[in-house]
Amino acid sequence: MSLLVTGSIGIDTVKTPFGVSKDCLGGSAVYFSMAASFFSPVRFLGAIGADCPFDLKKIFKGKKVDLNGLELRHKSKTFRWAGSYQGAMNEATTDAVELNVLAENPPQMPEEYKDSKFVFLANTAPILQIQLLDQLNRPKFVAADTMNLWINNNLADLKKLLKKIDCLILNETEARMLASEHNLITAAAKIEKLGPTVVVIKKGESGSIIRQSDGQLFVLPAYPATIVKDPTGAGDSFAGGFMGYLAGQNKTDFATLKKAVAYGTVVASFTISDFSLKGLTKTTRRNIDSRLNELRNRVKF
Amino acid sequence: MSLLVTGSIGIDTVKTPFGVSKDCLGGSAVYFSMAASFFSPVRFLGAIGADCPFDLKKIFKGKKVDLNGLELRHKSKTFRWAGSYQGAMNEATTDAVELNVLAENPPQMPEEYKDSKFVFLANTAPILQIQLLDQLNRPKFVAADTMNLWINNNLADLKKLLKKIDCLILNETEARMLASEHNLITAAAKIEKLGPTVVVIKKGESGSIIRQSDGQLFVLPAYPATIVKDPTGAGDSFAGGFMGYLAGQNKTDFATLKKAVAYGTVVASFTISDFSLKGLTKTTRRNIDSRLNELRNRVKF
Repeated sequence: MSLLVTGSIGIDTVKTPFGVSKDCLGGSAVYFSMAASFFSPVRFLGAIGADCPFDLKKIFKGKKVDLNGLELRHKSKTFRWAGSYQGAMNEATTDAVELNVLAENPPQMPEEYKDSKFVFLANTAPILQIQLLDQLNRPKFVAADTMNLWINNNLADLKKLLKKIDCLILNETEARMLASEHNLITAAAKIEKLGPTVVVIKKGESGSIIRQSDGQLFVLPAYPATIVKDPTGAGDSFAGGFMGYLAGQNKTDFATLKKAVAYGTVVASFTISDFSLKGLTKTTRRNIDSRLNELRNRVKF
Repeated sequence: MSLLVTGSIGIDTVKTPFGVSKDCLGGSAVYFSMAASFFSPVRFLGAIGADCPFDLKKIFKGKKVDLNGLELRHKSKTFRWAGSYQGAMNEATTDAVELNVLAENPPQMPEEYKDSKFVFLANTAPILQIQLLDQLNRPKFVAADTMNLWINNNLADLKKLLKKIDCLILNETEARMLASEHNLITAAAKIEKLGPTVVVIKKGESGSIIRQSDGQLFVLPAYPATIVKDPTGAGDSFAGGFMGYLAGQNKTDFATLKKAVAYGTVVASFTISDFSLKGLTKTTRRNIDSRLNELRNRVKF
C-alpha cells in the first residue's frame, strides 16, 4: 500500500567517539525512506537547495523510492546539521544548525501522492505537518514525530495535529514532557486522550513501548547491538521500518503493529552500526529478517 | 536446594513523590529473603542492634526463612538509611546513612549454613564478601552485588572476589564503570573476563540483560508497571526472585537463568508498588506467576 514520507534532506556533520563524518547525507526523510524501502514502495516529499552535493536518484537507485516529490530550489540552500555524541551516545548535542530550505514554504505535494494511504510526517513545526496532511485524501494511517521545541513553544498547534493523526512516535523525554507524567505507560495513555489511538515511545538503547487506546501494550528491548558508531537517524530509521512494514502488510491491527515495532528496532540497529546511511544501505532484507528472528529469541523465556 | 543470603537489615526512611515512610523495615537481606521465599527456603545471615524495632520472626512468619543466622548485638545499633526519590525515581539520593552494626565484624556463620549450595552476597565491602564466602564448603552457584564505592575505592579486593564467584549482579552505571565500557553487552563480556561466568545488568525501569561467558545473551524489558510508589529494595528483590528460582530448580543452565531473570523482574515489580515490604508481602506466588505470563505475552511478537 502507498506510503508517503514528508521530511528533511540534510547535509550532516557528525562527531562520535568513533570518528567524524563531515558533510555527509542525512535528514529524516532520507533515513526513513531508506529504512521503509525494505518493506514497501515509498513516496518521498522534501526540498533541497542548489548546494546539495548528493544525487538522491543515485543514492536510492534500485530502491522503490519515488522521488517525484523531491524539490530542487535553485535559490535556496540545503538544511545543515552538525552534532556530536559522547560516552554512551544516548543523546546528540547540536553544535550548529542551518534551517535554510526548511524555513521556507513546505514542498509542493505532487497530485499523484494525494491518495497515499500510509503517511509519516517527520519532525517539523506542527503547523506545517497539518498543512501537509490537509492536502491528502483520506489517508488510512497517519503517524507523526515531534520534539521538545514544539511541545514547549507550539503546544496549541501540536494539539491540533494530534487530533488528526493515528499514531505519535516520540522519545521518552518528549513523552514525559507532553503528558506531564513520568511513568511512560501512563504517559502513553494520556497522549492517546489527545487524539492518536497508537503511541510509540522510543527509549534508544533501552528499546520501545507501543500502546493502543484499547489498553493493548507491547514492550521490546532494543536489538542488543555491540557495534554502535553513529546513532544519527536511528529514530527515523525506526519509524521507516515501522511504517514500511505496516504499509507493506496494509494492516494496522495490534499483532501487525507489534511486528512493525520489532522491524523498526532491527532496522535502526543497522543504521547505528556505521556513519550516515552506510549501515543501512549495505544491509539486505534477508539480514533484517535474520536479526528479527534473533531478537525474537533473545526475549523468549 | 539451600539458598543463603548475607546482607543488611535496615531502618529506612524513604521519601518519594507518593509520600514518606519513616523508620520502616529495609535492608538487602530482608528484601532478598522475602522475594526468594516465594521460590525456595532461605537461610538468612545478618546483624541488628538493640534498637531494632522490628520482630523479624513475625515479619517472616509462614515464610520459609531460617533466622538462625540473625544476630542481635546488644551493644550495637542497627543500620539506618534515609533516602529520597524524585521525578521518574530512577535513582535514590542518600540523605543520611549510619552504618552502625555494618561497620563491625560480619555476623557469625551458623555451622548448619556452611553447606549452602546457592549463595547471594548482598552489597558490602568486597573484603567482607570474601570472608563470608571463605567460610562455606563448595557452594554450587555464588552471586554477588556490588556498588560504585567499591569499584572506585576497593577495586583490588573486588577483583579478588570476582575470581571466586559465578555471577555478578549490578546496575548499568556500575557495569559501565567496572568495565570502562559504555556498551552494556561488551561491558558484560569484559566483566566475565574478570571471573564470573554470568553477568546480570539491571537497568531499572528499562529491564535487564543477562550474559553468559559462552556468549549466550538474554534481554528483557521491565514489567510495565504503572503503580510505582517506592523503588527501594527493587534490586535486592530482583536478586531474590532470581536466586530463589535458581535454588528452587537446582539448575543454572541458560534456559533456567533466563526464567530466573524474568521472575526477578516480576517480583521487583511488586516491591516497587508500595512502600517498604508492603508490596512484596501482600502478593502471592499465584500473582507472581500470573504477572510472569503477562510479561511473556507483552514481549511476544
